[in-house]
Amino acid sequence: TIDPQRLWDTLMETARFGGTPKGGIRRLTLSDDDKRVRDWFKARCEALGCTVTVDEVGNMFARRPGRNNDLAPICMGSHLDTQPTGGKFDGVLGVLGALEAMRTLHEQGYETNAPIEIVNWTNEEGSRYAPAMLASGVFAGVFTTDYAYEREDRDGVRFLAELERIGYRGSEKAGARKLGAMFELHIEQGPILEDEKTMVGVVTGVQGMRWYEVTVTGQDAHTGATPMYLRKNALVGAARVIEAIDAIGQKHQPGVATVGLIENRPNSRNVIPGEVFFTIDLRHPDEAVLDVMEQEFRAALAANLPALGLAHEEKRIWNSPAVKFAPELIDCVRHGAGKAGFPMRDIVSGAGHDAAYIARVAPTTMVFVPCAGGLSHNEAESTSFEECAAGAQVLLNAVVEYDRR
Amino acid sequence: TIDPQRLWDTLMETARFGGTPKGGIRRLTLSDDDKRVRDWFKARCEALGCTVTVDEVGNMFARRPGRNNDLAPICMGSHLDTQPTGGKFDGVLGVLGALEAMRTLHEQGYETNAPIEIVNWTNEEGSRYAPAMLASGVFAGVFTTDYAYEREDRDGVRFLAELERIGYRGSEKAGARKLGAMFELHIEQGPILEDEKTMVGVVTGVQGMRWYEVTVTGQDAHTGATPMYLRKNALVGAARVIEAIDAIGQKHQPGVATVGLIENRPNSRNVIPGEVFFTIDLRHPDEAVLDVMEQEFRAALAANLPALGLAHEEKRIWNSPAVKFAPELIDCVRHGAGKAGFPMRDIVSGAGHDAAYIARVAPTTMVFVPCAGGLSHNEAESTSFEECAAGAQVLLNAVVEYDRR
Ligand SMILES: NC(=O)NCCC(=O)O
Ligand SMILES: NC(=O)NCCC(=O)O
Repeated sequence: TIDPQRLWDTLMETARFGGTPKGGIRRLTLSDDDKRVRDWFKARCEALGCTVTVDEVGNMFARRPGRNNDLAPICMGSHLDTQPTGGKFDGVLGVLGALEAMRTLHEQGYETNAPIEIVNWTNEEGSRYAPAMLASGVFAGVFTTDYAYEREDRDGVRFLAELERIGYRGSEKAGARKLGAMFELHIEQGPILEDEKTMVGVVTGVQGMRWYEVTVTGQDAHTGATPMYLRKNALVGAARVIEAIDAIGQKHQPGVATVGLIENRPNSRNVIPGEVFFTIDLRHPDEAVLDVMEQEFRAALAANLPALGLAHEEKRIWNSPAVKFAPELIDCVRHGAGKAGFPMRDIVSGAGHDAAYIARVAPTTMVFVPCAGGLSHNEAESTSFEECAAGAQVLLNAVVEYDRR
Repeated sequence: TIDPQRLWDTLMETARFGGTPKGGIRRLTLSDDDKRVRDWFKARCEALGCTVTVDEVGNMFARRPGRNNDLAPICMGSHLDTQPTGGKFDGVLGVLGALEAMRTLHEQGYETNAPIEIVNWTNEEGSRYAPAMLASGVFAGVFTTDYAYEREDRDGVRFLAELERIGYRGSEKAGARKLGAMFELHIEQGPILEDEKTMVGVVTGVQGMRWYEVTVTGQDAHTGATPMYLRKNALVGAARVIEAIDAIGQKHQPGVATVGLIENRPNSRNVIPGEVFFTIDLRHPDEAVLDVMEQEFRAALAANLPALGLAHEEKRIWNSPAVKFAPELIDCVRHGAGKAGFPMRDIVSGAGHDAAYIARVAPTTMVFVPCAGGLSHNEAESTSFEECAAGAQVLLNAVVEYDRR
């Protein structure tokens, strides 16, 4: 049985690395605070006798040997990076829940058949460096290492430069390590479990998601001296597209469609905006519907922008297809939740997760626990003491069951 | 007669202070580049024997004595600050045209009755520190000195700190100096003079303008896991208002309505925007119509935001009423343009100018020359060699005529 208080204490202790006044965390990937939490995590794993290996894109693997070290390791983990105004649980619970499970095994001298590893994947959030799940994607062969290295944040700072700066460019080739299985504990980030007062989500898959970038070009001009009929206002064009994208989401529920990031240029009170850059996030569990949403989004660009005298460029920068997780692992999660006596239900993840990429190279699944109001990517994100403990317990049970089988 | 080549050379020489690769200028008020151009201007004026005085908000006055120095000075000038991606002529032509006029008087040993002064007003653009025409406003008693000092840019850096940093906080009380008259040469920044192939705009007044700030508050949440029906997307609300404001401008032409600046928070690709800050610029020559535009803007907030579950705060931060210039000075401009043989027409300024505030404390008017395509607040802003020369000549003629009368 895991120690709920110890788990909670590590959550609160690490929440200081990038902690915000509103009780959230700002711990962008490869930042100084990311380095601090990585150093902390490494030291705690080593204190348990684990060996910590870092791969070339900064993914961290803390290994506890088993009886048979020729077996590929059973992995647990998630990510320690956060959104710019993120919460204390998204990702973090998956890594620290795994640490708690590992501490429990250690304390009880429980010897597994296979080695057990805790993983911290680099840049899951995709907020600083798009796309999300970048380094688990490299691990799974979806992206090349160079592709990851060349990513730039909105200030033009490269992934590789930051990885080296914080000292987490390891020597192991990403993906060289064979994984026997991967279990990821995570908060749901949506409202379903809470609504249904269900403690555990047995995650059967992840919906498909696509990201796009659009640049709308008009003409900077004076807000006072330029008549309305002479304007090429890029922000008015972007506003129409933002509304159209929201409407696409409304139409294709349970799909979702969002503009999350916008940069307006020159962004001066008395200059008609001449250029607007913005990003689009489209998701749906069904790839065929995602195709329709994509067509409708492109139609919205064509319908709105030229009529305002605006040019545009559009690019799909990411396509992460819908994923189904491994039945044998899902079964271990059901077993683990049942053993602990928690109500459970099957659920498809609305959020993307490292598990979605790792599923391509190893049997993989996830465990969800509720978060208050379904709220995530928000400093007020909240999962209770009991919910965190339940998640770590089910994770441990599932791993032990998988190892036993 | 002024020296067109010398004028052009000073325009090109000073365009290096903050010069951009696209041929524009980025010389935000109180920046290092603003300091450089101020130092340059001071040295050139002193080389003509002028005494340069700086007031407490950084306004610069370069004085050439006249026959009767008990008379209040006749002033010419404008501003040397620019937009973030501004052109080479907006404001700059008014100061350097005045310098050229002064050099011409000096060279020819022409003695005026009244002293002549060139003025460089601080922070006309209002881009770094809102509102526009801030320091001419202090001079005219519209704002207190402390109000100016407390303005903050979008990074929270105060006007006073920057004024002191660049060494342009003078000791003279703003407005203490009596002005006998003020002539401001400026590019039109709109399309009328070019359309009508008219060299000189005899500016009879400035339209009214009002600036507002709005903050829309929704709730940050995950773009993938938050169903459409649970969202409070502040950017979708802002988008509707941006469109509504454009429609208000379209409806009340020749009035104009623009959102120029927007800040989206947390501005992350996979976070539903929880807060959006944006600014509104409404203008019309008729205050009664401006009142209607303001009502319609507020109605647009009420009609769009609560329906999306969004709260908002709105504040009018600036109200610069329509201005009529002094008939006796306007007459001198007409005389000056006629004497030089330029086609002219009366025009009301769509842009705000320091002259609009100075008109409250001294007889004031302006001279406009065309700019290509009516384009301003754009790096491609362009006024020809001949047009610049024409402006400076008419400015000189008008000043000499006013002094003679
Ligand atoms: N879990 C999570 O928030 N992942 C970030 C990637 C996404 O946008 O879904
Ligand atoms: N002339 C000029 O561009 N002034 C800036 C103030 C404004 O009109 O917005």
